Amino acid sequence: MKVKVIITPKRAVLDPQGKTVQTALEHMGCSGVSDVRIGKYIEIEMDGDRETVEVKLSEYADKFLANPNIEDYRLVFED
Amino acid sequence: MKVKVIITPKRAVLDPQGKTVQTALEHMGCSGVSDVRIGKYIEIEMDGDRETVEVKLSEYADKFLANPNIEDYRLVFED
Repeated sequence: MKVKVIITPKRAVLDPQGKTVQTALEHMGCSGVSDVRIGKYIEIEMDGDRETVEVKLSEYADKFLANPNIEDYRLVFED
Repeated sequence: MKVKVIITPKRAVLDPQGKTVQTALEHMGCSGVSDVRIGKYIEIEMDGDRETVEVKLSEYADKFLANPNIEDYRLVFED
């Protein structure tokens, strides 16, 4: 089973990497960009049924893959 | 309009960051993981209709956001 973990900076947290990319896009002539936020995208291939995988990965996402103080994550399932 | 740019390493390219995360997950007791690949997830808030935005962002994804030699990207639209 393939699971995607999408990790994004929380709304309240500054995202300097995103701001840099936004400024660079403007400088390169790409107008109309009002916000850029950069996160991580992790694809995990894993054995097990959906429920087990969800419980397991939520635990590891919380303590290892994402930093819950500044990041949100969501799991996207694909069979 | 919100557009997500999802950038992933090409299948043929080694992903040492993914391998490191895979090994770490195993060491932490998360069994059954057969592959991990790590990419980038960029959310861009942009003015314009879907077609214009798609043409514009494909250009900037090709020359700036992603490295087409080693990475694939796809645009996901959300109104």
